[in-house]
Amino acid sequence: MNDHADIKAALRAMPIETPSWAYGNSGTRFKVFTQPGVPRDAYEKVADAAMVHRLTGAAPSVALHIPWDRVDDYTDLARAAKDQGIAIGAINPNVFQDNDYKLGSVCHPDPAVRRKALDHLLECVDIMDATGSTILSLWFADGTNYAGQDSIAARQDRLAAALARVYDRLGPHQRMLVEYKLFEPHFYTMDLPDWGTSYAHCVALGERAQVLVDTGHHAPGTNIEFLVTVLRRFGKLGGFHFNSRNYADDDLMVGAADPFQLFRIMHELVRTGAIGAGSEVAFMLDQCHNLEAKVPALIRSVLNVQEATAKALFVDADALAAAQANGDVLAAHAVLTDAFSTDVRPLLAQMRTEIGLDPDPVAAYHASGYQQRIEAERVGGSQAGWGA
Amino acid sequence: MNDHADIKAALRAMPIETPSWAYGNSGTRFKVFTQPGVPRDAYEKVADAAMVHRLTGAAPSVALHIPWDRVDDYTDLARAAKDQGIAIGAINPNVFQDNDYKLGSVCHPDPAVRRKALDHLLECVDIMDATGSTILSLWFADGTNYAGQDSIAARQDRLAAALARVYDRLGPHQRMLVEYKLFEPHFYTMDLPDWGTSYAHCVALGERAQVLVDTGHHAPGTNIEFLVTVLRRFGKLGGFHFNSRNYADDDLMVGAADPFQLFRIMHELVRTGAIGAGSEVAFMLDQCHNLEAKVPALIRSVLNVQEATAKALFVDADALAAAQANGDVLAAHAVLTDAFSTDVRPLLAQMRTEIGLDPDPVAAYHASGYQQRIEAERVGGSQAGWGA
Amino acid sequence: MNDHADIKAALRAMPIETPSWAYGNSGTRFKVFTQPGVPRDAYEKVADAAMVHRLTGAAPSVALHIPWDRVDDYTDLARAAKDQGIAIGAINPNVFQDNDYKLGSVCHPDPAVRRKALDHLLECVDIMDATGSTILSLWFADGTNYAGQDSIAARQDRLAAALARVYDRLGPHQRMLVEYKLFEPHFYTMDLPDWGTSYAHCVALGERAQVLVDTGHHAPGTNIEFLVTVLRRFGKLGGFHFNSRNYADDDLMVGAADPFQLFRIMHELVRTGAIGAGSEVAFMLDQCHNLEAKVPALIRSVLNVQEATAKALFVDADALAAAQANGDVLAAHAVLTDAFSTDVRPLLAQMRTEIGLDPDPVAAYHASGYQQRIEAERVGGSQAGWGA
Amino acid sequence: MNDHADIKAALRAMPIETPSWAYGNSGTRFKVFTQPGVPRDAYEKVADAAMVHRLTGAAPSVALHIPWDRVDDYTDLARAAKDQGIAIGAINPNVFQDNDYKLGSVCHPDPAVRRKALDHLLECVDIMDATGSTILSLWFADGTNYAGQDSIAARQDRLAAALARVYDRLGPHQRMLVEYKLFEPHFYTMDLPDWGTSYAHCVALGERAQVLVDTGHHAPGTNIEFLVTVLRRFGKLGGFHFNSRNYADDDLMVGAADPFQLFRIMHELVRTGAIGAGSEVAFMLDQCHNLEAKVPALIRSVLNVQEATAKALFVDADALAAAQANGDVLAAHAVLTDAFSTDVRPLLAQMRTEIGLDPDPVAAYHASGYQQRIEAERVGGSQAGWGA
Repeated sequence: MNDHADIKAALRAMPIETPSWAYGNSGTRFKVFTQPGVPRDAYEKVADAAMVHRLTGAAPSVALHIPWDRVDDYTDLARAAKDQGIAIGAINPNVFQDNDYKLGSVCHPDPAVRRKALDHLLECVDIMDATGSTILSLWFADGTNYAGQDSIAARQDRLAAALARVYDRLGPHQRMLVEYKLFEPHFYTMDLPDWGTSYAHCVALGERAQVLVDTGHHAPGTNIEFLVTVLRRFGKLGGFHFNSRNYADDDLMVGAADPFQLFRIMHELVRTGAIGAGSEVAFMLDQCHNLEAKVPALIRSVLNVQEATAKALFVDADALAAAQANGDVLAAHAVLTDAFSTDVRPLLAQMRTEIGLDPDPVAAYHASGYQQRIEAERVGGSQAGWGA
Repeated sequence: MNDHADIKAALRAMPIETPSWAYGNSGTRFKVFTQPGVPRDAYEKVADAAMVHRLTGAAPSVALHIPWDRVDDYTDLARAAKDQGIAIGAINPNVFQDNDYKLGSVCHPDPAVRRKALDHLLECVDIMDATGSTILSLWFADGTNYAGQDSIAARQDRLAAALARVYDRLGPHQRMLVEYKLFEPHFYTMDLPDWGTSYAHCVALGERAQVLVDTGHHAPGTNIEFLVTVLRRFGKLGGFHFNSRNYADDDLMVGAADPFQLFRIMHELVRTGAIGAGSEVAFMLDQCHNLEAKVPALIRSVLNVQEATAKALFVDADALAAAQANGDVLAAHAVLTDAFSTDVRPLLAQMRTEIGLDPDPVAAYHASGYQQRIEAERVGGSQAGWGA
Repeated sequence: MNDHADIKAALRAMPIETPSWAYGNSGTRFKVFTQPGVPRDAYEKVADAAMVHRLTGAAPSVALHIPWDRVDDYTDLARAAKDQGIAIGAINPNVFQDNDYKLGSVCHPDPAVRRKALDHLLECVDIMDATGSTILSLWFADGTNYAGQDSIAARQDRLAAALARVYDRLGPHQRMLVEYKLFEPHFYTMDLPDWGTSYAHCVALGERAQVLVDTGHHAPGTNIEFLVTVLRRFGKLGGFHFNSRNYADDDLMVGAADPFQLFRIMHELVRTGAIGAGSEVAFMLDQCHNLEAKVPALIRSVLNVQEATAKALFVDADALAAAQANGDVLAAHAVLTDAFSTDVRPLLAQMRTEIGLDPDPVAAYHASGYQQRIEAERVGGSQAGWGA
Repeated sequence: MNDHADIKAALRAMPIETPSWAYGNSGTRFKVFTQPGVPRDAYEKVADAAMVHRLTGAAPSVALHIPWDRVDDYTDLARAAKDQGIAIGAINPNVFQDNDYKLGSVCHPDPAVRRKALDHLLECVDIMDATGSTILSLWFADGTNYAGQDSIAARQDRLAAALARVYDRLGPHQRMLVEYKLFEPHFYTMDLPDWGTSYAHCVALGERAQVLVDTGHHAPGTNIEFLVTVLRRFGKLGGFHFNSRNYADDDLMVGAADPFQLFRIMHELVRTGAIGAGSEVAFMLDQCHNLEAKVPALIRSVLNVQEATAKALFVDADALAAAQANGDVLAAHAVLTDAFSTDVRPLLAQMRTEIGLDPDPVAAYHASGYQQRIEAERVGGSQAGWGA
């Protein structure tokens, strides 16, 4: 078991990236409900992300989504972020919201559409260069709705070709994370439906291609901590898109649906040295806040990740190993659940106080007047959203 | 086993209602791809529905969705439909696309919102009166995203109160069908998530409240033909919203994902006398055509239902009963699969020829010039869509 | 929020019944691994159950399974239980382990088999009379493996007829709980697959027929606390078979797979007055301990239920209602998660100390020498098991 | 589209292996129902398998399961098979039915148990040498039931070490197929839960290690034809264990639950040249016949695979490619469904007649008197079964 100082040190060294799009409006196919104060451009999203970081001390970067966050001068955007204490994180290309992409992007049967999609991916590497981003986060909406609609195999070939082109374009300090998703927005096949497919492509590409695990993108019953462990073992875990789900890709706040699952994932990461300084695993949120207030929801989500991690750091590794070696099923299980049952909120509050933060970041947000200010200032213009 | 004449007679007496919204644009939360020629108002949707009926002879009514299909004069809309050979079918209220409905409609914690939603439901009964519709088709998007967000029990009480008010408003020849759905657009609870909840409310309401089964709205592994049989046994099967799914509520064309399942459902309906003249079970499509051409997709869907029904009518009921009574598992199963393996397309083509239709309605559509005409005529204005 | 004294009082008044079969050997279709010290008859199971009660103070009854627990004199067995401080709880008939039941029991196509099954059910009511049991717990393995194998509707009729016969036989202080299960041991249909089917039959039977919720028997994604709330609302929640699952009916220790789910279920029960003195909801464990030591696993399971219930009792009901009324999604959710994050183990330890128990029942078991004694004494004879 | 002669030629060149264990008794954890005439040893299983081949002309080999099929002289068993017209197929080691294997076999925490399991695997390669078998079919029941029970990562290391030892032992004409399964008999982790984990290990091992796809071993919603295509593309599809499922690993007859799925899988195999002479993909049944008569169930299953394959051979590949290239979703889908709607039973009957077989193998079985003979002869002794 780590002592309290170690736990606090590990948590202070664990960055949790928030996504620019979570500050904008989002919703379902049935309705996007708008909220007052929502940002209207990338700069305002950066401002909200900086606010989350100021209050939590744990969210020092913000992921961009292109073209939703398109600006004239990405160097200027990066500078604006830096001025507010955060950095630009992963760049997320979007090749699914143009009419040309109805039947796919890099997997489309028409080579002209594939070329267009590839150009956008390459443009995103330019943006990485301009912003200092080191991660290209690739999710493709490509897939089909009906058996026979397109050749599964031909689409794999097209996908591999595009990935190889992008991989070759990466600079020496850049990497690409290849995300997968079981279904949606296509409902018969997705061209990257599971970690195995992402993994096979990443192996073929090389060491700077790694798998991105979105916690909401799996089939029912999938044991996420297991595949995380396997990916660590084979050297291909690039990072996470955190959120939570009860049914499908529900994009709820991380830890809201099943906090014990989040703890188990964190336990595997603690165990393999992926938590703390020097970790190369990227921790990124990827969520929607359809009903709840957005900035506080992101603060709450950062806290949820910290609490799960703190509990994982409380696991008595020696006692666990001893019980496992003895085949003592109940004792080994109890080591894990004892850590999970621990109330880590006081320790986290103390940690925040020690670094000059309010011990309760959500309350601090409500007391700050920030929400009132953005609601007053951000009138007129077009609220940012998914742009569907 | 029915003879061919009986099979054709049963199919000729089986109406399959198409939904007005399937003629408009639809999509996912990520993107709605538009298509040329899509209707711009309820009259144009009625025209498309009439075209499907002219070619198939099997789709004599069209369901409306309010407010998507709002018109000044519903009597006039009904007359326009009748002039083209079809009738107005079920009326589907929409209480999920107004900003007020973010936290629910009839289950909302605020009584003012509940009243607004109820008023809309009652208005839809007025529209039933004006159009001659006999079915009020109720689906509520109500639910919550997070544990604790609202009281599950209080929401049930609010739901029951609203349903009772609407029930009391129904005329003697009208009925309400209460639909359920496991998840989406809410992801922790839906206030009507399963057939059991719909059933319990319908029993409390009375005989003119019945359960509406949407084939895409179940948990993985749910045996739909089983619950259909149970609902028939307890007298509460009101009708279907047909579509198909591989994962969730994918809203693909009925029969596209699992044609054997559709056949098994139809077998249970044939067995209980729900197919053919006098059936009180309503057969309605409820689908999206995000990628494929809309009118041909609806024609194809009508044909899929007919093919599954024809195969079900081919089941040798006497042989089946004998094998079941003998406990001969393989023989009983083979009776069903023999019927399913039968190629019924020639019989259906013959049936169409006999009633003056083209034996291949899809080919007839492409040969008709209708698509070219609507693409040419329907320019300008705003294409109909889900309005999210 | 309840104060600590109220919480402890509520927990002290909450009986958790253990099942006799959990003390015997169990396993999967692939292998039943045996354990030393396992009981060889009903009396030894009762002794183990009494030991669990002595250490936890919370498990004052043991459920029987007939014929696994068949004895010559049930009155004597009840007396033996009473002498050790516990009572006989629910009686569970078994109509699935005789060669005659291959195609079903009360739903079998052959009336002679149905009669045999019915006789066994009625015999179990006799055993209720002899033991003082008030609950007949009905689970039927009946179902089919292949489409067409038997008539779904005819089997429903046979089921209804048998249930009615048993219902009529019940004494005034006895009730029957009707359990359901999605699948296994049949894999196409189960004759009682979901709560809706159980509910419909219970409504037809009368007020002494209620639904039994086994937490492991649902389709993936089913929201159990929702259906529990609905069953409470409609007056038909009879009780629980507690266990936990990751995939199917995995029969793991309750609370092991998803402790937050167990807490949410308990919250709904607390909210509706089903916890504490006078509750008519029966709390029963129904688990397997294939790998782990059996008596300690049952102790641990009782503690898990108590911890989840204690957390539910910590929910600040007033704050929750206020946040819900305000539509404050994040605040309402936080009321629940704050209670869940609370470490209730110290309070529970204190409660045990106050009533003269060891604060750590698992440690007390290991210190007691009981396991060594039963391993030494229970040699020879035939270990109890599922008898498959 | 292939012409009828080509289709018949392809089917005649497609061997479908039956598993010895499917001729024995099987069941669920709740009950194994016995059947008269069931084999009592490996020789009688071989006789039944030979009967299936005589009637279908399509099942020229039988898989063995060790130790269920342990004999003194495997060369003699192979000769007995050859005398009856079939060969010994894949060898399936069993390292899950010894008390030592409670916590695993090659992944067990105790090195002595791992060594014992490894020895058995190596013994099975000896049996391959003796019988001429070229396939070692590896399925491990290894896993855990509770979070923390054992180290996921350490178990992966142990697994990799054992696989490497077995791989090194293989002769130049032998290969190992590595199967995976989502859950059962363990319910928290399986050490090989999905195709990705099997694939990663096979890549590390070398070209004679390939993935074995059991159609029943996936999470709900998994698109099996997709992963089959990906495995073909990356050169790692070794073969199939065919069966069908509605819920979990239900082990029903192949094609019984979803014939359209089986057709889609076969379509991908036809498309990539895996059907017909020279294919290196092994087609093996792996099923249970708990309720239905065993030999006829296996005949029926062979026919189901042939029918699905024949339909796949009916797909008009040119029309499909043209529609896909045009992005004509409905037309491309219709090419597939037209082939599926074709009644191929007459063609298959004709093919059988042409090679001297009865056109209806199931009827031929019932007319043969074989069942009566085995029921009369196989009395006394111990019926073969899973031995759980």
